[in-house]
Amino acid sequence: MSLIHDMARAGRAALPALAAATTAQKAEAIRVAAAAIRARSAELLAANAADVAAGQAAGLSAALVDRLALDGARVEGIAAGLDTVAGLTDPVGEVIARWSRPNGLQFERVRVPLGVIGIIYESRPGVTADAAALCLMAGNACLLRGGSEAARSNAVLLDCMAQGLGAAGLPAAAVQMVPAGDRALVGDMLGAHGLIDVIIPRGGKGLVARVQAEAKVPVLAHLDGINHVYVDASADPDQAVAIVVNSKLRRTAVCGAMETLLIDAAAPVALKRRLVAALLDDDCEVRGSAAVQALDARVVAARPEDWDTEYLDAIASVAEVAGVEGAIAHIAAHGSQHTESVVAQDEAVAEHFLARVDAAIVLHNASTQFADGGEFGFGAEIGIATGRLHARGPVALEGLTIFKTIVRGTGQVRP
Amino acid sequence: MSLIHDMARAGRAALPALAAATTAQKAEAIRVAAAAIRARSAELLAANAADVAAGQAAGLSAALVDRLALDGARVEGIAAGLDTVAGLTDPVGEVIARWSRPNGLQFERVRVPLGVIGIIYESRPGVTADAAALCLMAGNACLLRGGSEAARSNAVLLDCMAQGLGAAGLPAAAVQMVPAGDRALVGDMLGAHGLIDVIIPRGGKGLVARVQAEAKVPVLAHLDGINHVYVDASADPDQAVAIVVNSKLRRTAVCGAMETLLIDAAAPVALKRRLVAALLDDDCEVRGSAAVQALDARVVAARPEDWDTEYLDAIASVAEVAGVEGAIAHIAAHGSQHTESVVAQDEAVAEHFLARVDAAIVLHNASTQFADGGEFGFGAEIGIATGRLHARGPVALEGLTIFKTIVRGTGQVRP
Repeated sequence: MSLIHDMARAGRAALPALAAATTAQKAEAIRVAAAAIRARSAELLAANAADVAAGQAAGLSAALVDRLALDGARVEGIAAGLDTVAGLTDPVGEVIARWSRPNGLQFERVRVPLGVIGIIYESRPGVTADAAALCLMAGNACLLRGGSEAARSNAVLLDCMAQGLGAAGLPAAAVQMVPAGDRALVGDMLGAHGLIDVIIPRGGKGLVARVQAEAKVPVLAHLDGINHVYVDASADPDQAVAIVVNSKLRRTAVCGAMETLLIDAAAPVALKRRLVAALLDDDCEVRGSAAVQALDARVVAARPEDWDTEYLDAIASVAEVAGVEGAIAHIAAHGSQHTESVVAQDEAVAEHFLARVDAAIVLHNASTQFADGGEFGFGAEIGIATGRLHARGPVALEGLTIFKTIVRGTGQVRP
Repeated sequence: MSLIHDMARAGRAALPALAAATTAQKAEAIRVAAAAIRARSAELLAANAADVAAGQAAGLSAALVDRLALDGARVEGIAAGLDTVAGLTDPVGEVIARWSRPNGLQFERVRVPLGVIGIIYESRPGVTADAAALCLMAGNACLLRGGSEAARSNAVLLDCMAQGLGAAGLPAAAVQMVPAGDRALVGDMLGAHGLIDVIIPRGGKGLVARVQAEAKVPVLAHLDGINHVYVDASADPDQAVAIVVNSKLRRTAVCGAMETLLIDAAAPVALKRRLVAALLDDDCEVRGSAAVQALDARVVAARPEDWDTEYLDAIASVAEVAGVEGAIAHIAAHGSQHTESVVAQDEAVAEHFLARVDAAIVLHNASTQFADGGEFGFGAEIGIATGRLHARGPVALEGLTIFKTIVRGTGQVRP
């Protein structure tokens, strides 16, 4: 444990300076890091090429190599992402509530940094810069643990972050990299209760599941995005088709993609057929209940486990349900509290769905693919949380803060 | 695990009905429970007398028997506490943020219940009613695990809560009692990740330490309240003495009590002597640094561990520090992020302290004993949290909620 404990203690020791840092100072650190990434792009690309070569030699899958590999455009994307974070509104110091008491005490609830944040991720080098910048902008220290396959790329990116911290006069321990390769260090991070304030895993389901199962430190994450679109009988047909196709097929591998379409049994048959055909015509496999199979010969039979499956692929489960209550019940049984959408012109139906469905994000007449910090207007996100504590939905700068209460008195003592 | 899992699943199954319950319904359940407690006070007192007799036979300490024992006034206090909770503002449904995006999407962040809350406590029967009512008013289900010494009293109180739930048409599984006696069940609660959303321990340091060390479920709690009052050279002497004496001695056993007094070395000697003498004259033992021993012959020498000790008794550690920076450094080294107070007429000194000290509650010219949900105007509290996630300081109804984001569109799909 001692390495992780030492790193976390160094991070904690940096917290007073980070909490006191001005917005301009934090932004400067991030902008200088972005400039360093641009200036050192040849060095970064060479390190990345060595990572890719080693990965290919070790038999890394093509998908993993794609996540790992950088080119000029991706390097510029990383740098531009940092510039975006540097321009975001600083949440630290914001007064989020103010009240007073009859005895004259004045209360202010003020945002402060969360503390030391552990980020555990896989082979994407961009996460190194992105996560570090978001943590820093909210005044936090971070311990980054990236995949060993990206170690050379990450070392260059970390050094660019260190350049930025140095230029802004902020402590180097604000952004630290946990050595890759030794899996026991991940376990040490997950158990560092009291030293690491929160762990944010960024990666596939296997990583998230391990982190959630083992962590004694609180975790902000989502495991599944089994998202539904419910099309009510009152839906505008064109709107319903557009939302369903976009929710499923705009990008199939994102956590905000629709996995299951729920169609009101009372909807016109023409609408039901159009919805199913639109998916099929766009090369999406449709797995349906018996009623849905009757709509189109191309629909294959859904197995029971399909209703609980996050495909992250051009496959959709489709069921008929008994109106909005049927949809709510289906989502309660099979949803993952991520993102759920209702398409309806009947406002009462829509409001009932929005109120009753338990999920981080509920939408009316809009695509589930808006489940994203950028689309929420947050400028960036460090992940999406489906837990019920602290933050929920896209987590951005505000989710990386907590508050303290300042009480101003004039000599009050308690009777 | 199966008993705790079954109970937690039953609690989760009750969540939709609880989330949909009106304020009036929840208040009715709590008021009927209060009325039942008053109506059945003879039965409750008899059960409690049996608990006390069994506890005394088993050699329970006098302090524990005092916490366990009820009388007519304490029963009325429990019932009146429920009536207070029933009259609090319902946080569920409150819109805490509203914004829109250029594409016309309308966003609302709305408070929703936290979910299933596990409360682990000791011998005070009042916690059964109080915790259940607070959880219920915020729309949550709770699993209560009280000490075995109060089992008979708790059974009557649980039955009164069940009467209230029944009268209001709310599910009985909203308030469940985990059988006392089997310590393994506490471990099961602490490990019920995904089924119990948060654990709130209410009791002594041993209980809190065990819960924090073992829990995989997030915990809202505080372990220590090593609170400081810093008296600056600019302090008003009368105010400083009143605040120091009240902070330490109003009640010594509460977590908001001052444990260490920090005096500005630059303060007038007369003020230093008055502060120390005021504590000593009020029968408070003073353990001081050499400089403080020189102020009054009654001061005993502080050992190094005194600066990290929560006495919860009429004992205070007193040190001289080099101004506000010295105080901030001492608190950073020895504080427990609970409650810290500065007494100063110099506003710049006070604001510097309030900004830089890392604690759930920071006060200016007021007693640390205001660290209490009632004194904050919350009407009640379920505990004080010193962690950095979700809630911090007194946790009341709002701390027992989370939010979801409602997005209203007009057919938007994502480009």
